[in-house]
Amino acid sequence: MTENEITLAIIKSLKEGRKKAFQEIMDELHPYDMAQQYLTVPPKHKHKYLSYLSIEQLTDLMEELEQEEQLEVIESLGGRRSTKVLDLMENDELASFLSDLEPEKIKELLADMKQEESEMVQNLMNYPPETAGRIMNNRYVWINKHYTIGEAIEKLKHFVELAEYLNYLYVIDDDKKLVGVISYRDLLLAEVDELVEDVMYSRVVKADVSMDQEDAAMLINRYDFVSLPVVDEEERLVGIITVDDVLDVLIQEANEDIERLSASGKSIDFNTKPVVAAYRRLPWLIGLLFVGLISGGIISGFEDTLGAVVALAFFMPMIAGMTGNTGTQSLAVVVRGLVTEDLTFRQTLHLIFRELRVGILIGITCGILIFLIALFWQGSAILGFVVGASLLMTLIIGTLAGTIIPLVLYKLNIDPAIASGPLITTINDILSLLIYFGIATALLSQLTI
Amino acid sequence: MTENEITLAIIKSLKEGRKKAFQEIMDELHPYDMAQQYLTVPPKHKHKYLSYLSIEQLTDLMEELEQEEQLEVIESLGGRRSTKVLDLMENDELASFLSDLEPEKIKELLADMKQEESEMVQNLMNYPPETAGRIMNNRYVWINKHYTIGEAIEKLKHFVELAEYLNYLYVIDDDKKLVGVISYRDLLLAEVDELVEDVMYSRVVKADVSMDQEDAAMLINRYDFVSLPVVDEEERLVGIITVDDVLDVLIQEANEDIERLSASGKSIDFNTKPVVAAYRRLPWLIGLLFVGLISGGIISGFEDTLGAVVALAFFMPMIAGMTGNTGTQSLAVVVRGLVTEDLTFRQTLHLIFRELRVGILIGITCGILIFLIALFWQGSAILGFVVGASLLMTLIIGTLAGTIIPLVLYKLNIDPAIASGPLITTINDILSLLIYFGIATALLSQLTI
Repeated sequence: MTENEITLAIIKSLKEGRKKAFQEIMDELHPYDMAQQYLTVPPKHKHKYLSYLSIEQLTDLMEELEQEEQLEVIESLGGRRSTKVLDLMENDELASFLSDLEPEKIKELLADMKQEESEMVQNLMNYPPETAGRIMNNRYVWINKHYTIGEAIEKLKHFVELAEYLNYLYVIDDDKKLVGVISYRDLLLAEVDELVEDVMYSRVVKADVSMDQEDAAMLINRYDFVSLPVVDEEERLVGIITVDDVLDVLIQEANEDIERLSASGKSIDFNTKPVVAAYRRLPWLIGLLFVGLISGGIISGFEDTLGAVVALAFFMPMIAGMTGNTGTQSLAVVVRGLVTEDLTFRQTLHLIFRELRVGILIGITCGILIFLIALFWQGSAILGFVVGASLLMTLIIGTLAGTIIPLVLYKLNIDPAIASGPLITTINDILSLLIYFGIATALLSQLTI
Repeated sequence: MTENEITLAIIKSLKEGRKKAFQEIMDELHPYDMAQQYLTVPPKHKHKYLSYLSIEQLTDLMEELEQEEQLEVIESLGGRRSTKVLDLMENDELASFLSDLEPEKIKELLADMKQEESEMVQNLMNYPPETAGRIMNNRYVWINKHYTIGEAIEKLKHFVELAEYLNYLYVIDDDKKLVGVISYRDLLLAEVDELVEDVMYSRVVKADVSMDQEDAAMLINRYDFVSLPVVDEEERLVGIITVDDVLDVLIQEANEDIERLSASGKSIDFNTKPVVAAYRRLPWLIGLLFVGLISGGIISGFEDTLGAVVALAFFMPMIAGMTGNTGTQSLAVVVRGLVTEDLTFRQTLHLIFRELRVGILIGITCGILIFLIALFWQGSAILGFVVGASLLMTLIIGTLAGTIIPLVLYKLNIDPAIASGPLITTINDILSLLIYFGIATALLSQLTI
């Protein structure tokens, strides 16, 4: 059946009130598909759709939806069923659902949940956003190092619902400290009476609760793990991060980098409403409008020069644009490089020096080119020299600004969102105009001959 | 031991020629760490480092290195050992190592390999880059649907080295067609005499060999899989894609999006040499230089207007900059949105209309603001009107250009790298200058009163 056929069959079963036919279709669907179908059916059928799903299916569905739709589902389910669903949801999914809600709403939702579950979620929400503690979940199985392989398999069978996705068991000692890891495959291969501690791998790669989520994601990526254990300050196992969450983290962090480079505003996607999208982008634009006026101020300071040689204005956009472009190019290299590499001081210097040389190479090439163009277009070697020399200097400075500003912010642990592409572009605009008109003014007597 | 201590211990064992001590350290290291240590030790020790490693360890090491370093290792190992390593490498890793080498070099390297392995790699390299076929590997275990669970476990034990990472077995019928999937966990839980086909899950999510690698990655992400089977045109199982490769794909695709937005040049990272980096960025910059000159041409066309009202030049960089910024903001939303969503025609229209309304909202806000600023700064309501009206129009047009251009390229299947951020910025520069000077020229008699 194609997706459309499935949708039609679902709507038919809902219209005719045939719950069994509906369930037969659902049995074949992955949670993702179940959610897509829920989003596709007409609004008037959504309530019945939900009422026909089991608590387990509702939980799967919730975990695939966005917050707005999750709230709709919770409202539609009513108190008792919604509480059961919240109890069953993975802690990290629940925490992310609750994260931006009003405090009263959170209290209301948590009130009827099992105390154990609600405490665990509140505990999770106490970790700062974008840390390992915040994205970890408790769907793992631990075993004591004194267990035999047979006992470990027994425990695994018992907690099978919990451990669906993984292929490791984590081994703890009597103080709950993480001391080892053992794969399901090792369990299959070992003899049942062997001791876990004799089979387990004891050099465990792990994340600290307070580790940045991107660093934890890179650990999983480097070591090709499916899950990564998370420990607290006392080395006690408190949760795991799974590779499916890491995929989401990588996409989210890439989007943040792009927001940073393009100042496109936080979390605007295809479904964001126009007013919201405008509201999220405007602060940046208004800020940049004022910074852009500084350029205007600089030009007005050189009004006499410009009035004397109007041809200077012809090259203004090109010089400002080129400087902005090289700055953004360098910025992109730095921003993306920091995702996969940790920079030592020596590497930082090396990178700055590299970009300096790139700037010089680019500057010389483009400087000579524009000198020749200006010479033939405007028939003035002096104007050509002013434009060419300006471009050489601004390209070098633009490259360095695009490299050094984000690196300094990174080293100072300042939210690097400040070093957005448009900001670098605007700073480079200002620098380029100062250099351009500075050189032109110095050579004004030559230019006006 | 910290990483530094490990490095020192490694260097000591190499200096003193104590292979056993060296191996004891290596036994504790993950492949990633082994590679990091190899990169850290001084060049003069690298040859001995390699000579002390087993073929299996060398294979692990190779898979963690970049192409340049891989070539060094192969050179250093010499013919016989290097062939053994190449035989053992995962197909997809080997294909990606070979991919950019000279044809003669590839022939030379493949010549001594086992025929079976070298054929498989050549087969892989026949798929176009960035498809599912190109990133798949053959480290999976298949079983026939007529096997019992006991037979399946026996086969798994036999091929254990192959199946280290996964937690599924793929089930095929007598024609090698993929008909089901079964998890290691299901194997543990089922009775040994049950039939595989009675336990397996038969609605298998799979990728076609020619599917775009990003789409395959999104399938794994949506369904939270650890691996995804790949089938050929006849539905035969030919390989699997694993989540660790998907992580790399997501990082690579995000980097490509950022290269597109910032025209930062293909694959420039912290280790790229200055000349190479300059060479990769220059084509864009030189192209943009000429496009930037079009702006100059437009201004020169309005030389009289500009000569009459030099104050017009003060607002030029701000208007061009703002138009460029909003274009990039829209572009970023489109580029990133296309990663996670497939656009229907209706959604495309919806998105364009959304961005139109965003442009109007932003344009009205910024237009009024700049009108007031120009009015008080330059004391001219007409100049304020020219600047404000221009900004309103250019912001709307800039937003639409940043939305429509990448969408059209996407629909036309044109390499979207063309719709780079600087290109949109430059196009918007040109449009904004035309509008600005057009309005100013129309109102010139008013402006010069």
